[in-house]
Amino acid sequence: MERTFIKDLQEHKGESVLIKGWVSVRRDQGKMVFFDFRDMTGMVQGLVIPGGAAMETAKNTSRESVVAVTATVQERPSKNAQADKINGGIELLIESIEVLSPAAVLPFEVNEDTAGIGEETRLAHRYLDLRSERMQRNIRLRSELVRRCREYLFGKLFTEIETPLLTESTPEGSRDFVVPSRLNPGKFYALPQSPQQYKQLLMVGGFERYFQIARAVRDEDLRADRGFEHTQIDIEMSFVTQEDVMRTVEEMITTTVEGMGFTIKEKPFPRFTYAEATEKFGADKFDLRTPEDKENGVMAYAWVHKFPFFEKTSDGAWTFTHNPFSMPVPEHVEQLLAKKDVGEILTTQYDLVCNGYEAGGGSIRAHKPEILKAAYEVMGYSEEEIQGRIGHMLTAFGFGVPPHGGIALGVERLVMNLTGESQLREVQAFPMTRGGQTAVMKAPKELTAEQLAELGIRINPEKKHGQ
Amino acid sequence: MERTFIKDLQEHKGESVLIKGWVSVRRDQGKMVFFDFRDMTGMVQGLVIPGGAAMETAKNTSRESVVAVTATVQERPSKNAQADKINGGIELLIESIEVLSPAAVLPFEVNEDTAGIGEETRLAHRYLDLRSERMQRNIRLRSELVRRCREYLFGKLFTEIETPLLTESTPEGSRDFVVPSRLNPGKFYALPQSPQQYKQLLMVGGFERYFQIARAVRDEDLRADRGFEHTQIDIEMSFVTQEDVMRTVEEMITTTVEGMGFTIKEKPFPRFTYAEATEKFGADKFDLRTPEDKENGVMAYAWVHKFPFFEKTSDGAWTFTHNPFSMPVPEHVEQLLAKKDVGEILTTQYDLVCNGYEAGGGSIRAHKPEILKAAYEVMGYSEEEIQGRIGHMLTAFGFGVPPHGGIALGVERLVMNLTGESQLREVQAFPMTRGGQTAVMKAPKELTAEQLAELGIRINPEKKHGQ
Repeated sequence: MERTFIKDLQEHKGESVLIKGWVSVRRDQGKMVFFDFRDMTGMVQGLVIPGGAAMETAKNTSRESVVAVTATVQERPSKNAQADKINGGIELLIESIEVLSPAAVLPFEVNEDTAGIGEETRLAHRYLDLRSERMQRNIRLRSELVRRCREYLFGKLFTEIETPLLTESTPEGSRDFVVPSRLNPGKFYALPQSPQQYKQLLMVGGFERYFQIARAVRDEDLRADRGFEHTQIDIEMSFVTQEDVMRTVEEMITTTVEGMGFTIKEKPFPRFTYAEATEKFGADKFDLRTPEDKENGVMAYAWVHKFPFFEKTSDGAWTFTHNPFSMPVPEHVEQLLAKKDVGEILTTQYDLVCNGYEAGGGSIRAHKPEILKAAYEVMGYSEEEIQGRIGHMLTAFGFGVPPHGGIALGVERLVMNLTGESQLREVQAFPMTRGGQTAVMKAPKELTAEQLAELGIRINPEKKHGQ
Repeated sequence: MERTFIKDLQEHKGESVLIKGWVSVRRDQGKMVFFDFRDMTGMVQGLVIPGGAAMETAKNTSRESVVAVTATVQERPSKNAQADKINGGIELLIESIEVLSPAAVLPFEVNEDTAGIGEETRLAHRYLDLRSERMQRNIRLRSELVRRCREYLFGKLFTEIETPLLTESTPEGSRDFVVPSRLNPGKFYALPQSPQQYKQLLMVGGFERYFQIARAVRDEDLRADRGFEHTQIDIEMSFVTQEDVMRTVEEMITTTVEGMGFTIKEKPFPRFTYAEATEKFGADKFDLRTPEDKENGVMAYAWVHKFPFFEKTSDGAWTFTHNPFSMPVPEHVEQLLAKKDVGEILTTQYDLVCNGYEAGGGSIRAHKPEILKAAYEVMGYSEEEIQGRIGHMLTAFGFGVPPHGGIALGVERLVMNLTGESQLREVQAFPMTRGGQTAVMKAPKELTAEQLAELGIRINPEKKHGQ
């Protein structure tokens, strides 16, 4: 017999069916045994009646075991029907249960909210945690969100292009994860903190409209809303203004989020200058929702723009606030080239904020080599240092580059907003612990002497057992 | 004025338009200057007539410069019309040319086939190479292929789920790229060679139908058709037989490839056992095309199955031929459990072959702990070693695991088949050189002393300058 999905059982009243899935609940009432069965499409109640051939198996089947059940779909007695629940009006009269894989005693309940389970236990048994209703919903919603954003972008003639994982270390950003090169012992690749330079090079390469669902990897201290790895909807467009990019992103978000049944508080998204935001909210990310909005699950998106391009570091030098590759606002280009009143130069940066989180940010890029160079000169780089850092970008821009700009939106942040989660680990399938230990698997771990020798590296014995 | 895409110019005959793009060709005929302009949507001819206001700029605009051109769309004189070319019947009478970004003298021609340009020059200026017609077609076709496969899978209730990049080293496979952990000095993560274990854990986690367009990273010697990084369409399904997975993949490939206008030589895909394939073709990958098929651009997909599970290593021990997590064919399960006639045990492995390449492979997995363990025992692992390697999988399978199986299809291989390319670098945006140098960027490179100290590693001085 072909398997029937649990969501489709309603259409088979009176028929014999085969379902496959998990035992969510087993209630042994002595003469009768009741079950809740679950597959990826839904949940249904089943029962074994006294004298039923399946009684012995029913008595010995543990919760979370995987089973194949043949049964007749029947209407529930009207006093037991639950009209508000999917399959609340039907039940399965079980003919036989085949245990495809029995479940041992569980380390925690998957029928309940697993958010409170200790991090180590939860992540060591992540495959159980993922069976919980909340985790299933979060991970499936993430898939749906990205799917819809993709379709929006394809509809606007974007091309999805993958950029390398093994790339060059860029010391301006956060700390890189590095990868020793066996072919070049003593040398290292870095994992990308963002595909920033590659996506700009794709604009030089004539693709005009690029996107990628890109993994970004940063060796930052782990926090509730920040992990080593996150994913961004990475977008870059040629021949555009700041307004063009913001309009495209706003339409993508609106189409996607409303298409998934959520409500957006205000459209078009309200805009605040950085000065207005800090005055009004004391920060450049803020929550525009009233208590009633929160109850209704409203998404309060907003834009922040007109950020200062530079800020002073603790030692008095200038550094960029967001992105050294950005263009200043048009009326401040001359000021940057003249390196005059540096603290007052505004950048074309735009940040998307939602419900108190920064959901993404981007800018129009400095496509003229002299403007990009001027930003590095303001930050005190010598000509030689500039060539070392961004010489390849300056060279590329010398072969004809369209004006361009883009944005990166944090997938996890967007999903956290939609699901109301405040922890990154609730929206990633296999997150790390705060100590940097992988879920289920045993990493990081020591390498063999042979592996180390091949890579031309040694372990510094003083640091071997952590600091 | 709003920009008009070059593909839409036909609809604007007699009107004044603004186009933006690149100068593909400039022919200065003294009194007149002719151009071919290019944007991401197409190509069009333009001309500046004697006395035209744009003449001075026209004389000084180099090839591959980025320009904004205002012009009137007019019919070409009938003697010059090229009916077979897009925009062959129209031309632009140029009113003004604004050079948005001038191009320096090019290191190689982008209007010609760039395949013969030296690897180092091509990759150092990859952004120019990407402007060539062939590279634009290859990269856009890749995006389209993946888009269509995705849509097929979503239509079949699959969920797209991302798995970690920082994970555990698995010494059974090829050589891992490793990543030192700053939080755990002296310890290392590994980059994934495939999401094999994670996707099986997602089956334990109840997702039932998973896919991911997954990056796989292997420190293998570089060859024409193999790089450090490649991308796979990674699929796993629960409650399925070998036949179910093969049918799903075959339908996905057929729908996608035919939807893109290609012809498939034979449907359903012919199947060969490993024994038949080696007897008939002397190998487990083969090209079924006749010379005429090759000329017509036919795709000759085929399946190979019934591979031996194990083969002897040079020191006489047994090792797996494809995947230690596979299930033997049903009739050989007892034989594996008994470790009897090991060389004759067949695995449920199925490989997809196309035009002489292996395009992908997969299997039904051993979901019963005792079967998975038996495979490791055949290979000579002790109980302790087995627990160290796959203890977490055995534990996971003890909590209820559905029968499951899947496949991984190489995106680059699929695109190479469709485009007729034989080199991996023709279907990746930023491939590496054979020496492991990144395109455009300068990696790998040395770390600073501070970075090394933080990671708790030292460079082995003997190996520092390569061996």
